Amino acid sequence: MATKKLGLQTLKLENTPSIISTATIVGPKEGEGPLAKYFDLILANSIYGEKSWEKAEKKILKEAVEMAVKKSHVPNSDIEFFLAGDLLNQIISASFAARELGFPFLGLYGACSTIAESMGIGAMMVDGGFADNVVVATSSHFCTAERQFRMPLESGNQRPPTAQWTVTGAGAAVISSKPQNPRITHVTFGRVIDMGSSDANDMGTAMAPAAVDTIVRHFEDTGRSPEYYDLILTGDLASYGKDIAEELLKQKGYNISQNYSDCGMMMFRPDQDVHAGASGCACAATVTCGYIYKEMLKKTFNKILLVATGALLSTTSTQQGETIPCIAHAVSIENL
Amino acid sequence: MATKKLGLQTLKLENTPSIISTATIVGPKEGEGPLAKYFDLILANSIYGEKSWEKAEKKILKEAVEMAVKKSHVPNSDIEFFLAGDLLNQIISASFAARELGFPFLGLYGACSTIAESMGIGAMMVDGGFADNVVVATSSHFCTAERQFRMPLESGNQRPPTAQWTVTGAGAAVISSKPQNPRITHVTFGRVIDMGSSDANDMGTAMAPAAVDTIVRHFEDTGRSPEYYDLILTGDLASYGKDIAEELLKQKGYNISQNYSDCGMMMFRPDQDVHAGASGCACAATVTCGYIYKEMLKKTFNKILLVATGALLSTTSTQQGETIPCIAHAVSIENL
Repeated sequence: MATKKLGLQTLKLENTPSIISTATIVGPKEGEGPLAKYFDLILANSIYGEKSWEKAEKKILKEAVEMAVKKSHVPNSDIEFFLAGDLLNQIISASFAARELGFPFLGLYGACSTIAESMGIGAMMVDGGFADNVVVATSSHFCTAERQFRMPLESGNQRPPTAQWTVTGAGAAVISSKPQNPRITHVTFGRVIDMGSSDANDMGTAMAPAAVDTIVRHFEDTGRSPEYYDLILTGDLASYGKDIAEELLKQKGYNISQNYSDCGMMMFRPDQDVHAGASGCACAATVTCGYIYKEMLKKTFNKILLVATGALLSTTSTQQGETIPCIAHAVSIENL
Repeated sequence: MATKKLGLQTLKLENTPSIISTATIVGPKEGEGPLAKYFDLILANSIYGEKSWEKAEKKILKEAVEMAVKKSHVPNSDIEFFLAGDLLNQIISASFAARELGFPFLGLYGACSTIAESMGIGAMMVDGGFADNVVVATSSHFCTAERQFRMPLESGNQRPPTAQWTVTGAGAAVISSKPQNPRITHVTFGRVIDMGSSDANDMGTAMAPAAVDTIVRHFEDTGRSPEYYDLILTGDLASYGKDIAEELLKQKGYNISQNYSDCGMMMFRPDQDVHAGASGCACAATVTCGYIYKEMLKKTFNKILLVATGALLSTTSTQQGETIPCIAHAVSIENL
């Protein structure tokens, strides 16, 4: 029998791998938001000296990884694996960053859930004795995402109120067998849930049921209740999705209103005119690796459930009349 | 110290997870090739009753997984995780298959190396006690790949001699803690290698150095030599890439000519007019899950090193003048 498994979908990490360092880079708009002081580098512009937004995104991802590794004091040669993914077709931000970084590379795709997927698999590698130090990361970029998934920015399309603003940035974390806080104690990998939403301008509504499915599964598998956590943090449901998630959880007997936030609601001020809130792989990644991590070091929070959500559509699937399959992966991060 | 790590990039799976079943589905052209008798289902046409090639690819992937699970005699409820990826933007074949299958899902992207990446991570989950049964799979489809990566089929472009033919099909395997042959004993996760190739019609040449890097690393990490294996099997280097890989390995002191094959050279007969050979995620997946697995059960082969290779480009990266970053992941499959 699998000795490190709880219930149906949850891994219990008995050796509780540590997050020994993180790094975050964000774009200028994110740097004007309420979490600005938690980010390591705020860019002056979105192109970051490169010839395309895609190359800028790759550079942001690569530099966030280098920064996290440097802060960890683990020599480059002791970083055993690099786990990463992003939103771009064929995850080119991650693959091209991996080319320059040189670490053995595992490419992942979970859309905006990728930071939790990579932390989950990375923590499993350390917990299982397959590695002592891995670095995980993810990125997104408003300009690369808009032109790939929606419309070229140049066309100046109007955004509906449900639209979310893709975060420009990257978050990286070094996960290690070194025993120190905070630790990754549990991982709940999610199922794909599709409740029939098809509006690519309303991802929060589409993703909320996946977040709920994984949160309920996490509670059932671990026997924990919402009160166990100082904060339950969904990835990027934003204003519409967050309300739906809270309501659906209430219907299932879980009231999380007292200790629930969503990264998509935390990144920008209401007057920054992003409509429903923030999204993108970098949303959960920079909030977790920036704000959450730094406040956990100060013990403001001691028990966090990160539930990063992803919408697994493509432009092709939408053009072919498909609805939006969604997923959420949860990671328990705790000071022990 | 990581107790299940050998050298720089290799995992030693002490509990030697088993491949307890596999399934393969291929298209009609693959069904006319030399390995036809090893495949479980040969389609009469590439559209498989669906309204698009993308939907057909998803169906092929889903049905290969269902078939592998059925053959494993593991109840659906005991399949704990599904690990998969494919070539399409946002890996929609895998994500939409996961939606219908219902298993907790980890999306991966390693281009044509995905079968080895998924077997590697899946085997790690079983070996580390995180799961008892996982199913891994990957797919590709000639028609979806051509129109996404190259030109619409309707335009009837001429293919150069270095071009490879993307395999239409899917391969799936159930990896289990049940002690039976064949076993996954070692996994060597690769680094991204880019020697400056930029021709999207010559992937074999681009990927060969990545295969060589991982093979050399595997030998150095494990202390094994080429003779240890009954067969060293690269993913889809095809005729140009295979020659380059052999020559580069010779320069590094490893002569593998006696026991080396490439899946891209095995799928089609020379007179099937595919030019350099086969490619696609399904190439290594169907050869391994079909021919190799069935011959290992008969003990024709007892020690296999699968080295699946992937070209991590996108159309955007090519349009922006980038060369092709490549990767190879190796999995030792052995009868103990």
